[in-house]
Amino acid sequence: MQKADIGLIGLGVMGSNLALNIAEKGHRVAVFNRTTARTTAFAQSAGALAERIVACDTIEALAAAIRPPRPIILMVQAGKAVDEQITLLRGVLSANDIIIDAGNANFRDTVRRFSELRGSGLTFIGMGVSGGEEGARHGPSIMVGGTEDSWRRVEPVLTAISAKYEGEPCAAWLGNGGAGHFVKTIHNGIEYADMQMIAEIYGILRDGLGMPPKEIGGVFGEWNRSRLNSYLIEITATVLAADDAATGKPIVDMILDRAGQKGTGKWSVIEAQTLGIPATAIEAAVAARVLSSMKAEREAAEAAYGKLSAGSFGRDKAAILADLELALFAGKVAAYAQGFAVMDAASKEFGWGLPLPTIAKIWRAGCIIRSQFLGTIAEAFEAGGATRNLLMAPAFIAMMKEAHPSLRRMVARASEEGLPVPALSSALAYFDSYRQARGTSNLIQAQRDFFGAHGFERIDAEGAHHGPWAGEA
Amino acid sequence: MQKADIGLIGLGVMGSNLALNIAEKGHRVAVFNRTTARTTAFAQSAGALAERIVACDTIEALAAAIRPPRPIILMVQAGKAVDEQITLLRGVLSANDIIIDAGNANFRDTVRRFSELRGSGLTFIGMGVSGGEEGARHGPSIMVGGTEDSWRRVEPVLTAISAKYEGEPCAAWLGNGGAGHFVKTIHNGIEYADMQMIAEIYGILRDGLGMPPKEIGGVFGEWNRSRLNSYLIEITATVLAADDAATGKPIVDMILDRAGQKGTGKWSVIEAQTLGIPATAIEAAVAARVLSSMKAEREAAEAAYGKLSAGSFGRDKAAILADLELALFAGKVAAYAQGFAVMDAASKEFGWGLPLPTIAKIWRAGCIIRSQFLGTIAEAFEAGGATRNLLMAPAFIAMMKEAHPSLRRMVARASEEGLPVPALSSALAYFDSYRQARGTSNLIQAQRDFFGAHGFERIDAEGAHHGPWAGEA
Repeated sequence: MQKADIGLIGLGVMGSNLALNIAEKGHRVAVFNRTTARTTAFAQSAGALAERIVACDTIEALAAAIRPPRPIILMVQAGKAVDEQITLLRGVLSANDIIIDAGNANFRDTVRRFSELRGSGLTFIGMGVSGGEEGARHGPSIMVGGTEDSWRRVEPVLTAISAKYEGEPCAAWLGNGGAGHFVKTIHNGIEYADMQMIAEIYGILRDGLGMPPKEIGGVFGEWNRSRLNSYLIEITATVLAADDAATGKPIVDMILDRAGQKGTGKWSVIEAQTLGIPATAIEAAVAARVLSSMKAEREAAEAAYGKLSAGSFGRDKAAILADLELALFAGKVAAYAQGFAVMDAASKEFGWGLPLPTIAKIWRAGCIIRSQFLGTIAEAFEAGGATRNLLMAPAFIAMMKEAHPSLRRMVARASEEGLPVPALSSALAYFDSYRQARGTSNLIQAQRDFFGAHGFERIDAEGAHHGPWAGEA
Repeated sequence: MQKADIGLIGLGVMGSNLALNIAEKGHRVAVFNRTTARTTAFAQSAGALAERIVACDTIEALAAAIRPPRPIILMVQAGKAVDEQITLLRGVLSANDIIIDAGNANFRDTVRRFSELRGSGLTFIGMGVSGGEEGARHGPSIMVGGTEDSWRRVEPVLTAISAKYEGEPCAAWLGNGGAGHFVKTIHNGIEYADMQMIAEIYGILRDGLGMPPKEIGGVFGEWNRSRLNSYLIEITATVLAADDAATGKPIVDMILDRAGQKGTGKWSVIEAQTLGIPATAIEAAVAARVLSSMKAEREAAEAAYGKLSAGSFGRDKAAILADLELALFAGKVAAYAQGFAVMDAASKEFGWGLPLPTIAKIWRAGCIIRSQFLGTIAEAFEAGGATRNLLMAPAFIAMMKEAHPSLRRMVARASEEGLPVPALSSALAYFDSYRQARGTSNLIQAQRDFFGAHGFERIDAEGAHHGPWAGEA
C-alpha cells in the first residue's frame, strides 16, 4: 500500500477537520485516535476522501503507514496529553521523524519539548493553527516553529491545507523552538483586544444610543465595507442580525454576558510583562473577560451604585457613528502595535528572527483576526523603519492622525456616561503616552530618589544624580 | 559573652540600617558581611549602639554568637546570592535555626526555599520589608511569611524594630511559605499605581493648567490635609517645592522623565494574571514606567504627531482642582480594591489565610504607601462582607459615590486634551465594568460560538446553548 505523507493523532473536532482538509488537498494521511471506535467512525464518514485516509488501530500501525521521515501531527488537549503522546511516539518512531504539536500549547512547553527531544534524534515542531473548526476543514492560518529542515519536510502538506490570501498560502516557518506557538499566543491576545473593542462599541450603541441589535448589526455591516473590513466585524453584523428560535427575540439579547478566558489570552499578557513591553489593550481585554464572569458581583454592585441612565450619549447620531467607526479603528491600530511590539521583543529575546511582515501576511486569511488591515501592516513592516512600533510607520501615522481625535471624543463621552471602555481607553492612553516627548515620570523619579535614594538622570548632564533632599530623608 | 538575639548577614544600606535599628531597640545583633572590612567599619561607626553589635569575621563566628534557635536575617541581593548564603548557612546552623530572607524575593523562590529547607531541620522565613533606608533605620513595615513557631521566636525583635501606628507595631505574621513576600509584591504593585496616578494628576496640572512646580506642590500640600493624606502625597509636595542647587530651577524640571521598573511591579501583574484577577490600574502603572523609558521613541512620535497645546484644560481652576482631588481619590480606591482582590485570591489559591485587615493595618506606618486611608480599609475588612471587593464595603460605596463623578469628568477632559491618564482611566473602566449588571460580553459569547462552537449560557435557561448559526459556519 502507498505510504501516507503525514500522520495525525487525535480525531476531535479540530483533528478530524484537519485530516479531511489534508486528504482533500491530495495528501495521504494516516490517522489514529485513542479510542478505535472513533477512528473507524471517522474513516467511514469521510466519503470520497476515505481513499486517502489510512485508519490505524495502534500507533505502531500509524508509524508503519507513514513515509519516513515521518511527520505526525498531534491534535490533542494542550498540556499533559501532549507529553503522554510524545512518550508513546518515542517508542515507535525513528531518527529524523517529526512530532508536530498543533494544539494551543504554551510556547514555554514547546521550548521544553523541543529540547527534550533533541537528543533522541526526533524533531519537534510547535505549530499554531487558527481559524476554528471551519479553518481546520477548509484552510487555517498556520504558524510553524521548529528547525528549517523539519519545515521543509512538511511544507508541501501545510501550504496545501492552509488558507490562501490572493493565492498566497497562509502558512509559514517563523523560527526555531517556540516561535510558532508564541506567535499564535499573541495572535489570540490581539483577538481578545479586537473582540473587546467591538463589544465596547456595541455597548455604546446599545446603552448610549439605545439602538436595537438589528440596527447595530446594520452599522457593523456598513463598517465592514470600509477600513474596518474584517472577519470579526462581518460576524458581528451576522450574529446581531440573528433571532433566537425559542423566543423570536434577537439572540444576543438572550445570551448571558459571561465570557470565559482560555490560556492564550492570559499567557500573552504574562509574556508581554516578562518581556517588559506594554500590552495594555490586550490586558484590558483579558480583564474584561474576567469581570464579565463575576456576574453576581456586578449585579450587587449595580444595586449598590445605581443603574446607568440609557440613551444619553448624544443627539447627532450620524456624527457619533462616524466617530465610533474611527475610534474603533484607532483602538485597533494601537492594539496591533502592542501585539507586534511584543513579538518583536520576543524575537530578540529568544533569537527567533521572527519575520513580522510574514506574520501579518499569514494572518490575512484563515484566522479569526483576518482582514485587509493586516496587509497594510505587512506593507508597513516591509517598507522598513517601522519595526520599533507600528505607530511610527508613515502609513499608520497618517491613519492615526485622522482617527485619534474620534477615539478621544468617544472615550471621553463614554467615560462621562459610565459606559465601560477599558480596551479603548487603554489604547488611547497608550497612544497619548507614546506620543508625549516630555512625560511625567520625572516626578516619579524625584519621589523614588526621595524615599529610596534611587538616583535620577538629569536633562542637562550625564550620570546619576540625587535631589537636594539627599541625606535628609 | 552574652549571646545575640538575632544575626544579620549583608551590611549594605538596608542591612546596616536594620542592624542599627535592632541594636537601638535593645536587642543584641550579630552581624557578618562577605568583606570583613565593611563589618569592621560598620561596628566602628555604630557609636553607642556598638555595645549591642557583635561583629563577626566568619559565618561560623556568627552562628556561635547567636542564642539558639538562631534567627539570621539575610539582607543580600535578591536571587542567586540568597541561595548561596543559604548553602553556606546550612553548614553551620543546627536544627530549628531560622533563616530569614528580608530582600525583595519573588514569592515563588521563597516557596521553593521554604520547601528545600524543610527536610534539613532548618526553618525559612520570607520577610517583606518596606520603607526604604529610612524605614529600615527607624521603623519599617514588616510582612512575615513562614511557620507560626518561627514567627514566635522572632516576634519580639521584629515588633520592636517595626514602625508603630498609634502604638500598634506594623509587623505581623501573615501566613506560611511565600505569604510575606507575596504581600510585599502586591504592596509594591499598589505603590506603582499610587505613584502613577499622582504623576498623571501632576501632568494635568502642569500641561493642562500650565501651573509651575511650586504651585503644584502647594496643591498637593493642601490635599495632604484631607482624604488624600499620605506619605506619597506629602513627599510629592516636598519634591515639587525643591530647587536644584546647580541651576536654581525647580528640581523636577531638571529630572529626566525616564523611570525604571523593578521586579516587584512586573511580578504583581504576572501573579494577578496567573490568578485571573483584574489589576488593570497596576498594569497601567507598570506599562507607564516602561513607556517612560522609551524616551527617544517618544520624542520621535511627538515629532511625527505634533506637540500638544498646553494650558487648555479648563477655565474654572477651583472646580478643576476640586475634581482632581476627588478623581485621584477615586482612582486610588479602585487600585487598592484591585490589589486586595489579588491578595484575597492568592490567599485562597495558596491556602495562606491572609489576614486582610492586618495587612492594611501594618501598612498604615513605615511603608511607602502609608496613610490613614489604610485604616479605613482595615475597618472595612474588619466589618466583614467586603472581602469580595473593597468597592462593595459600605464605607467605600459612600466614598466612591461622591468621588466617581469627578474621576469620570477628569478622565474625559484629559482624554480630549491628549493628556495621558493610563492608570486613572483603567481605574474608571474597572469601576464602570464592575458596576454594570448587564455587560457586553454576550456579544463576545455570540462571536465565540459562531467561529468556534464554544457554546454560551442563556439568560432564561440552564446549560450550554448554541446560536441559530450552529453548523452553518
